[in-house]
Amino acid sequence: MRKPYFRTEAGQPDPLRYKVKRRVRFEEVDPLQIVWHGRYPSYFEDARVALCEKFGIGYLTLYNNGILAPIKKMHIDYHLPLKFQDEFEIDALLHWSEAARINMEFVITHNGDIASSGYTVQLMLDYDQNLFMLKPHFYKDFCDRWKAGEFE
Amino acid sequence: MRKPYFRTEAGQPDPLRYKVKRRVRFEEVDPLQIVWHGRYPSYFEDARVALCEKFGIGYLTLYNNGILAPIKKMHIDYHLPLKFQDEFEIDALLHWSEAARINMEFVITHNGDIASSGYTVQLMLDYDQNLFMLKPHFYKDFCDRWKAGEFE
Amino acid sequence: MRKPYFRTEAGQPDPLRYKVKRRVRFEEVDPLQIVWHGRYPSYFEDARVALCEKFGIGYLTLYNNGILAPIKKMHIDYHLPLKFQDEFEIDALLHWSEAARINMEFVITHNGDIASSGYTVQLMLDYDQNLFMLKPHFYKDFCDRWKAGEFE
Amino acid sequence: MRKPYFRTEAGQPDPLRYKVKRRVRFEEVDPLQIVWHGRYPSYFEDARVALCEKFGIGYLTLYNNGILAPIKKMHIDYHLPLKFQDEFEIDALLHWSEAARINMEFVITHNGDIASSGYTVQLMLDYDQNLFMLKPHFYKDFCDRWKAGEFE
Repeated sequence: MRKPYFRTEAGQPDPLRYKVKRRVRFEEVDPLQIVWHGRYPSYFEDARVALCEKFGIGYLTLYNNGILAPIKKMHIDYHLPLKFQDEFEIDALLHWSEAARINMEFVITHNGDIASSGYTVQLMLDYDQNLFMLKPHFYKDFCDRWKAGEFE
Repeated sequence: MRKPYFRTEAGQPDPLRYKVKRRVRFEEVDPLQIVWHGRYPSYFEDARVALCEKFGIGYLTLYNNGILAPIKKMHIDYHLPLKFQDEFEIDALLHWSEAARINMEFVITHNGDIASSGYTVQLMLDYDQNLFMLKPHFYKDFCDRWKAGEFE
Repeated sequence: MRKPYFRTEAGQPDPLRYKVKRRVRFEEVDPLQIVWHGRYPSYFEDARVALCEKFGIGYLTLYNNGILAPIKKMHIDYHLPLKFQDEFEIDALLHWSEAARINMEFVITHNGDIASSGYTVQLMLDYDQNLFMLKPHFYKDFCDRWKAGEFE
Repeated sequence: MRKPYFRTEAGQPDPLRYKVKRRVRFEEVDPLQIVWHGRYPSYFEDARVALCEKFGIGYLTLYNNGILAPIKKMHIDYHLPLKFQDEFEIDALLHWSEAARINMEFVITHNGDIASSGYTVQLMLDYDQNLFMLKPHFYKDFCDRWKAGEFE
């Protein structure tokens, strides 16, 4: 049983989810015939970018609203290896946070088995690299719409 | 103050350390002019490979002794960004473990500041992908020499 | 007007074609906000792998028939840059060759414009790294079926 | 005998050269145990960046003088494969050109054998993406010093 990376408290909205499909590329495979562990950040990112795009908080949209959202923390658990041409799904879950953070969980499945899971935490900065201590206006609006059930 | 990723208990030998120097390459930098977060596994690996080589437990040596050591877990904390052509050091620390695991910590410094830190945990498998529950012979020998102070 | 990379002589079958669609990923973009030139081999490979798969000469199929097909030569012409999230198509064309070679041309288009083009040449080796001077049996069969119009 | 990629005409200065040393990293190796062909642009770039830096025409220096120098063309010939931890040298040669172009040749050697060779051609653009038809001021100065033998 996997331990949850993030917890949803009572009264908080459910995570937003988005799933993308990928296939292992030749260059991602290492001499041991499995996907090199350092390729998974790019798998996570495929799902992160797609989820953010889907819900209107894509990298360029945030940027155009004065927000940079660099990765502060990344964690990956490797359960089962992936091989050349394996088809797999990357499930991204955006977890609610009261703080000015983007907490995202990732689950990679192959043939119904969990191959890998992990999470990233993003902070928000303004153009001058100052940390937003509270959710910036644009992101707060997004969160309000999320809490109001607009994305269900 | 950084929390330690691993603890050394009383009676256990100190971590083995090795440091490599690197410089940020153009292709490692993202559109925001900082090193893309997904390049750090490769920075960690540069130091991991060098440390293992130095102490006689390189990937090919393990392999030739019947041991595969895939990454089971990776964690990265990002403190300060790196930019194009920044020179930095990657300090790898192999922490003692009673279990059949390779627990390694990484600290990346730039101009004396910690830019990033993290760790990896490796399991050991035989050629048939069976998990070693106890340290395999070759790795146990290495640990005995470590404990005997041979690497100080 | 682009010069052709390969010429089809009279009596030779037309190139086999296959097209894949891709979208520029964040990590492929460099500090100048365009796709780093060194990512294009991976774009070409996406189309190469898909074409070979489609026509039954995928990397693993060749391998299982005793054939390695390493890249001997690669050429890329850059016409227009690609940017983050640009959608583009990679058109791969397998050109007929009398020799034991895999000659493939690539054309990357974005919004109907040619963004990039190029080619790769692959040789064929047996497991002992000996060069096939004549098409090996399995690949010759494939070529016979191609010439017979089986793939039209 | 390798055909030359560029020719130096009578009266033109000799190429400027710079050599860097590298070692094959684990992640650069593919399932066939050789360096994946698509890693070589990054090897070439290591030598290109070092040569340009050495002679005062580094990417940032050009940029600060109003010049972008995107790759227009890249060609790679693969002679012998490289394997994990192979040590190799990348020799970069900047060839003289009367045009506003940066023509660079690369030769990768391993144990004295040529493993790979190739070239890149770079154009020069101003910040508005207009092509410089003549060498821009800053680059012309550099060429004059080169012709005057200042770098010998």
